[in-house]
Amino acid sequence: MNSYRKLQEYFPEEQIRKLKDAIDRKVKPLGSLGLLEDLALEIALIIGAEPGDTLRLAPLHLIFAGDHGVAAAHPVSIVSGDFTVKMINTFIKGGAAINAFLNESGIPFEIINSGIRNPEDIVRGDITVRNCSLGPGTRDLGTENAITDDELEKAAAYGKEIAEEAVSRHCNVLLFGEMGIGNTTSASAIMAALTGLPPEDCTGRGTGIDDAALALKISLIRKGLARLPKNPSPQEILGAVGGYEIAEMTYTMIYACGKGMVLVIDGFIVTAAALLAVKIAPEVRGRMIFATESGEPGHRIMLEHLEATPLLRLGLRLGEGTGAALSYSLIRAAAAFFSRMAEWDSANGRIIFRN
Amino acid sequence: MNSYRKLQEYFPEEQIRKLKDAIDRKVKPLGSLGLLEDLALEIALIIGAEPGDTLRLAPLHLIFAGDHGVAAAHPVSIVSGDFTVKMINTFIKGGAAINAFLNESGIPFEIINSGIRNPEDIVRGDITVRNCSLGPGTRDLGTENAITDDELEKAAAYGKEIAEEAVSRHCNVLLFGEMGIGNTTSASAIMAALTGLPPEDCTGRGTGIDDAALALKISLIRKGLARLPKNPSPQEILGAVGGYEIAEMTYTMIYACGKGMVLVIDGFIVTAAALLAVKIAPEVRGRMIFATESGEPGHRIMLEHLEATPLLRLGLRLGEGTGAALSYSLIRAAAAFFSRMAEWDSANGRIIFRN
Repeated sequence: MNSYRKLQEYFPEEQIRKLKDAIDRKVKPLGSLGLLEDLALEIALIIGAEPGDTLRLAPLHLIFAGDHGVAAAHPVSIVSGDFTVKMINTFIKGGAAINAFLNESGIPFEIINSGIRNPEDIVRGDITVRNCSLGPGTRDLGTENAITDDELEKAAAYGKEIAEEAVSRHCNVLLFGEMGIGNTTSASAIMAALTGLPPEDCTGRGTGIDDAALALKISLIRKGLARLPKNPSPQEILGAVGGYEIAEMTYTMIYACGKGMVLVIDGFIVTAAALLAVKIAPEVRGRMIFATESGEPGHRIMLEHLEATPLLRLGLRLGEGTGAALSYSLIRAAAAFFSRMAEWDSANGRIIFRN
Repeated sequence: MNSYRKLQEYFPEEQIRKLKDAIDRKVKPLGSLGLLEDLALEIALIIGAEPGDTLRLAPLHLIFAGDHGVAAAHPVSIVSGDFTVKMINTFIKGGAAINAFLNESGIPFEIINSGIRNPEDIVRGDITVRNCSLGPGTRDLGTENAITDDELEKAAAYGKEIAEEAVSRHCNVLLFGEMGIGNTTSASAIMAALTGLPPEDCTGRGTGIDDAALALKISLIRKGLARLPKNPSPQEILGAVGGYEIAEMTYTMIYACGKGMVLVIDGFIVTAAALLAVKIAPEVRGRMIFATESGEPGHRIMLEHLEATPLLRLGLRLGEGTGAALSYSLIRAAAAFFSRMAEWDSANGRIIFRN
């Protein structure tokens, strides 16, 4: 979520003022809905609403899934790489945390296969799995560049396609989630490359690895970063240490920007993609709502780097877009009070109802 | 919400262990759902669920409304006392923030008239207004005791009635909200009396009063507290500086305890009632989920005093139970993952689905 000050960087002052006045006329003490007021303001600005409009939200939850060469080659996770497809199948069968959360909220849900090792093992079910595969998992970032230039171009094309299809379906809130064994290694490396912080400060225990695995994870990240030039471009960073799902999220965010689309950013991995997206196209920052401050230690630093205020601080570190899905009830509540609350007509001492 | 350690004070170790094991078997890294795992554990313990059970929640949102003599006699709020009934009518007509939030969640909603000045002005509508009136507003706590012993006895009887009716309707989650011009003055005084902190540290700007009104508010609280004996009982505190709605919430919490009822505690005013309830009947503490850390400055201190972790930190300071209502989506999500998520059978390397 963005502060009033931060919103001024991205939206016309007059539009902000007009919408803020509408919120201030609601029958409640000024500012008494706290962060929810900033949230309502931001949603109204992004979707281009006017005071008095009903904010109609049409959300879509996307889980981008990809495999990582680094996890195939090294024990950087407590589970083996075939867990990526196992979890995709768990989503399809309805047994994951994200299913429990989305079920309650009624948000539609799709899986993007950004590039997993064994797509032939994906089961059939009610949930659409969209094939945007860049290959059978990235290369091991500890020994070579994870993603080729050609694959990155394809990632951008898929991102454009995904964003455009969401728009054509009249979706205006995209919730980002991910699944990919090894992807905290990639996200930590991206964070280190973009912030300049030492890899130790960017790297956590992910699924719950021990000290030895953590030391290995950091050393692999260091090797990946060593291949980068000084002041690398976001594209060079994605190429050296990225993940297929991270690359496709990055480009989906960029292409969704400017289309009246609210981007709901989940935890550590999705925020790494958000950092890249903002580096490539700074205006994307004004469309982002930060759902959660993750339990993964580097996440708070990422949020500070982005000057972002998260909606929830529950210590989540599961991925799947669980934080984004949980935050959606607050996003919906912000839209609801903006749309439905009566106004206080102080001049005449009466309350004006909406219908 | 309560930490694992805190839950051990109120529930049998074996039951906690059994439910915690069930949560740990879910197909996710250990602890990766953060506070939501503690929340699921607490809900399961309170409603008496076993591992493998579906947690069925039946919520009821109650707004306790009362008028305050202190607000009738002094400018301790930015609005006049007749705003209490105006807001009750706004709830009934569907124009308040709480309507917008409850509407989205499907939670049923009732108003308790704990004692307002002009009940004849309440409009008719779809929302039940239950008459539990103790009188036409309390006395001015700045000059005399706000509530008589006789009224307090009636408050206890109404609390018992409200709790028992909720149980008879198979409700198992009570969300507490309130409305009452002047009730931050009463809540601050209760906080000061129970914590021993100076009134300055317990008193905020409520609806948004200026420095002069804040100084007046603090001086009135000090006069109210001066009538109390050393080490006053919770009943003496309620009598000297309480509010009708605060008294009825206190007793509703106490009588709902032990009936498998989850008590969802809102912001500053409801937490003052919770402090009193825990002082009268310490076991009530184990049934409480703290929805929100309010923007009213004393609230954080109250929560620390209760060793409570709030679910949301959005800077809300509106009342009406808005924090409780917003937190309900997290409560529901915690119950949903406990009930629906597949388990990881590590011995056989497979995922076990619920159906």
